[in-house]
Amino acid sequence: MTDGSARPDDSFHVFDTTLRDGAQREGINLTVADKLIIARYLDDFGVGYIEGGWPGANPRDTEFFARARAELDFKHAQLVAFGATRRAGGSAADDPQLAALLDSGAPVITLVAKSHDRHVELALRTTLAENLEMVRDSVSHLKAQGRRVFIDCEHFFDGYRANRDYALEVVRAGHQAGADVVVLCDTNGGMLPGSVREVVADVLAATGARLGIHAQDDTGCAVANTLAAVDAGATHVQCTANGYGERVGNANLFPVVGALEIKYDRRVLPPGKLAEMTRISHAIAEVVNLTPSTHQPYVGFSAFAHKAGLHASAIKVDPDLYQHIDPELVGNTMRMLVSDMAGRASIELKGRELGYDLSSDRELAGRVVARVKEQELQGYTYEAADASFELLLRDEVFGRPSEFFTLESWRTISEQTPDGAGANEATVKLWAKGERMIATGEGNGPVDALDKALRAALERIYPQLAQLELADYKVRILEGQHGTGSRTRVLIESTDGTGSWSTVGVADNVVAASWVALQDAYTYSLLKAGVTPED
Amino acid sequence: MTDGSARPDDSFHVFDTTLRDGAQREGINLTVADKLIIARYLDDFGVGYIEGGWPGANPRDTEFFARARAELDFKHAQLVAFGATRRAGGSAADDPQLAALLDSGAPVITLVAKSHDRHVELALRTTLAENLEMVRDSVSHLKAQGRRVFIDCEHFFDGYRANRDYALEVVRAGHQAGADVVVLCDTNGGMLPGSVREVVADVLAATGARLGIHAQDDTGCAVANTLAAVDAGATHVQCTANGYGERVGNANLFPVVGALEIKYDRRVLPPGKLAEMTRISHAIAEVVNLTPSTHQPYVGFSAFAHKAGLHASAIKVDPDLYQHIDPELVGNTMRMLVSDMAGRASIELKGRELGYDLSSDRELAGRVVARVKEQELQGYTYEAADASFELLLRDEVFGRPSEFFTLESWRTISEQTPDGAGANEATVKLWAKGERMIATGEGNGPVDALDKALRAALERIYPQLAQLELADYKVRILEGQHGTGSRTRVLIESTDGTGSWSTVGVADNVVAASWVALQDAYTYSLLKAGVTPED
Repeated sequence: MTDGSARPDDSFHVFDTTLRDGAQREGINLTVADKLIIARYLDDFGVGYIEGGWPGANPRDTEFFARARAELDFKHAQLVAFGATRRAGGSAADDPQLAALLDSGAPVITLVAKSHDRHVELALRTTLAENLEMVRDSVSHLKAQGRRVFIDCEHFFDGYRANRDYALEVVRAGHQAGADVVVLCDTNGGMLPGSVREVVADVLAATGARLGIHAQDDTGCAVANTLAAVDAGATHVQCTANGYGERVGNANLFPVVGALEIKYDRRVLPPGKLAEMTRISHAIAEVVNLTPSTHQPYVGFSAFAHKAGLHASAIKVDPDLYQHIDPELVGNTMRMLVSDMAGRASIELKGRELGYDLSSDRELAGRVVARVKEQELQGYTYEAADASFELLLRDEVFGRPSEFFTLESWRTISEQTPDGAGANEATVKLWAKGERMIATGEGNGPVDALDKALRAALERIYPQLAQLELADYKVRILEGQHGTGSRTRVLIESTDGTGSWSTVGVADNVVAASWVALQDAYTYSLLKAGVTPED
Repeated sequence: MTDGSARPDDSFHVFDTTLRDGAQREGINLTVADKLIIARYLDDFGVGYIEGGWPGANPRDTEFFARARAELDFKHAQLVAFGATRRAGGSAADDPQLAALLDSGAPVITLVAKSHDRHVELALRTTLAENLEMVRDSVSHLKAQGRRVFIDCEHFFDGYRANRDYALEVVRAGHQAGADVVVLCDTNGGMLPGSVREVVADVLAATGARLGIHAQDDTGCAVANTLAAVDAGATHVQCTANGYGERVGNANLFPVVGALEIKYDRRVLPPGKLAEMTRISHAIAEVVNLTPSTHQPYVGFSAFAHKAGLHASAIKVDPDLYQHIDPELVGNTMRMLVSDMAGRASIELKGRELGYDLSSDRELAGRVVARVKEQELQGYTYEAADASFELLLRDEVFGRPSEFFTLESWRTISEQTPDGAGANEATVKLWAKGERMIATGEGNGPVDALDKALRAALERIYPQLAQLELADYKVRILEGQHGTGSRTRVLIESTDGTGSWSTVGVADNVVAASWVALQDAYTYSLLKAGVTPED
């Protein structure tokens, strides 16, 4: 590893525990390779400390530290090994678990210590005095081996409420034995910011230790609790990427760093790194195989998406009027959504995004708004169907629909035969470039069969369609109070290998609605491939 | 509407704006029917105020208020109409927008008012003095018509920072004209709790107005900001179910209410309602057709889920050691992720609920657990399909399926004919009571046609089916990464006039999945009507 000349200064620690505490999230199961990739992303982002796991506790974490030593060359971060204080009644020097922490080669070690009297007695089954001795002995031993040591005081806030004197004793024991930071942990996540601020201020005054905060999100206040601790004097914050963690999760690294950098004006990242926040958040989500949360503060796909007409007209005047920060600061972008709540202003902005200037033609913009409202009343939605909206816009701009073929009829047959097998078949009849085409397709279902039939009918005339692929498909029943007779909305996402787009269809039933969305998907694909529509 | 004797007292308002501000969330597009259903859930939960939309601004909201007046009979809540102060230079008495608010019949009106000097000038394009007059005139006019009036001071916190005197003037103007509550809005969502507390305390001291808070979640602190305002003296909180709202979202109703009830020990819901929080959160998610967030505080599926290890042994000693509250308080349950104990226990509980005692036959309970796991692996879900689960349970209890007919085959044909008309037809062939039946049905779509055909085939033999009606229908595409070839899950809700039940089907396509769910719906209906299955 490098000597860390690019490391953040020591006055404030951004400590990431995605690889240790974050991995406790339901649904996350990281391989060693995943952990190495995530560690590189976090280092690239510029956090000061990366807690990699508990070497010795399981083979995967032991292997991670071995490979980290060989393969990782951090630019900014220091690697941290997590473990516990020595066992009760033993000695730190002979403790195999502490030896494994040292063997990991990590320059920094976090030791979890009990600070709630009831937990010492019920879960650890030792005396309050011996627990203090375990803290002192373990910290002194690791410090004597030249490591930095942070103490995680588990259940600190509940312990403080139950027995303030004892909780403070644990902080003093760690501090006096030489721990570089004593971290107050809200392990059950039940705290609220007002009490966090009071407790942290009291602990700081009573012990003089350098304090850190580790917040869980069970009240939905982990970010606020982290900032409340900083307000009260903590200078070390423990977070996880995207808030991953046990139960509800941990304090989310990105809004914590966003608040510190932008709202507190405190430099906690290397220059230029804040703007990579959105990319890094999404990249880590991909590695852990979870869809990035669209509504995550700062970095979510929707974090700067505007829908209301009231807002859109003001945004046209000045984007700052409806955004708390410039999205580019964190590598995100503003997006205008098209809905019947939107007025002319948001349609104009959306048009500009798609390359059509509607601002000079108020009458045209008005027609588009009217058509969107009319269509939405039928159950259409354009928010998630950019391609269908662009086709609607083109219809109005050019005064006629973009058509590559004219439908005569389609038919689908789905059946279950007496032998229990299923079969789906579709036939389309259409006109394209003056020819009448009839084609039949088979598929897994009626819509798949329709897609196959349409492709068979058109592929000779439009070979560009070979690239088109349907990637995702969503069905929503509207007015779901009239049984199977209700209206159906279908959203289809398509791709041609270089981009993807969404189209929408609404009709009395799922097959007819799918036909409408399919037709838009084919039309948009051909326009995108540069083919000119028929007259 | 009733006179609201069950309504919460006026000293503290839980004000829900899911139907107005929540509907701004990207991906939410509510029909009038959706809004009526959600309003009933929110009233059942026990919020004091339900903001329904902006009557007059779009046809959907106007229709909602008309139907609400006729169809909703709230037990706890009062309906609120949202609108803006009168237009600049006009008079409140002649303002068509204010007239539409009055026409809506809502007993409470929220008026949005500008409180940021720059917004008055740039977005509203009027003078600071006229804006104050707009507030006074609009409030007085609505109060004179006997309505309660709340003022939403848009961009209050940014306005306060830019021009404290003017922001306070707006609060005073509303207060002095008779507004019942002046709501301070963090419209851009950029605030942090420390500053919210300071500003709210200052406004309260400077104006004496009754204050409310409306927080957006752009810093990830909306819940904490809401509670900070309460700490400073606000007695009215505006929230949305599941935190739905524009951009990142609004303050989430559930953790706000959870904190007030449990952490503040303040009664803001009718007795017994807190324990319905999880159910209501999930039900609203289903209506807006978003998957309930698994990691939402208090109500998420994972909110009390514990991975094995350090925590598991402690939880065996005492569950309180690793949970900030008892999950049953909010209608949620603790889950241990590494054992099937939870599975067996909940299936036993569910069986007891349905009248089957599985606790005495561990082998039977084990078979049911195994079958549920196997089916869930195929994409089935029984959480929302009680009737299908009961049929599965009966299969295992009686050692054979409950069958009233044996399918030979079915076929559906959907088409669009050259004249543009659609047609859907289905044919079923089946055996019942020793007879072979063939029947054909026509419908709005293939599933509707299948239902008609099945009914035609069976109604002579089972006249009880005359009562059966399909009430709701939901489609979800599973593993949505294989286009239209992915698996499809269909949930059908049926009713016979005296009760309703849900069934589930999973197959390669929507028609085949619907057939499975339909078959369960018919079977359950006949069992419920007391008919004995065939041998």
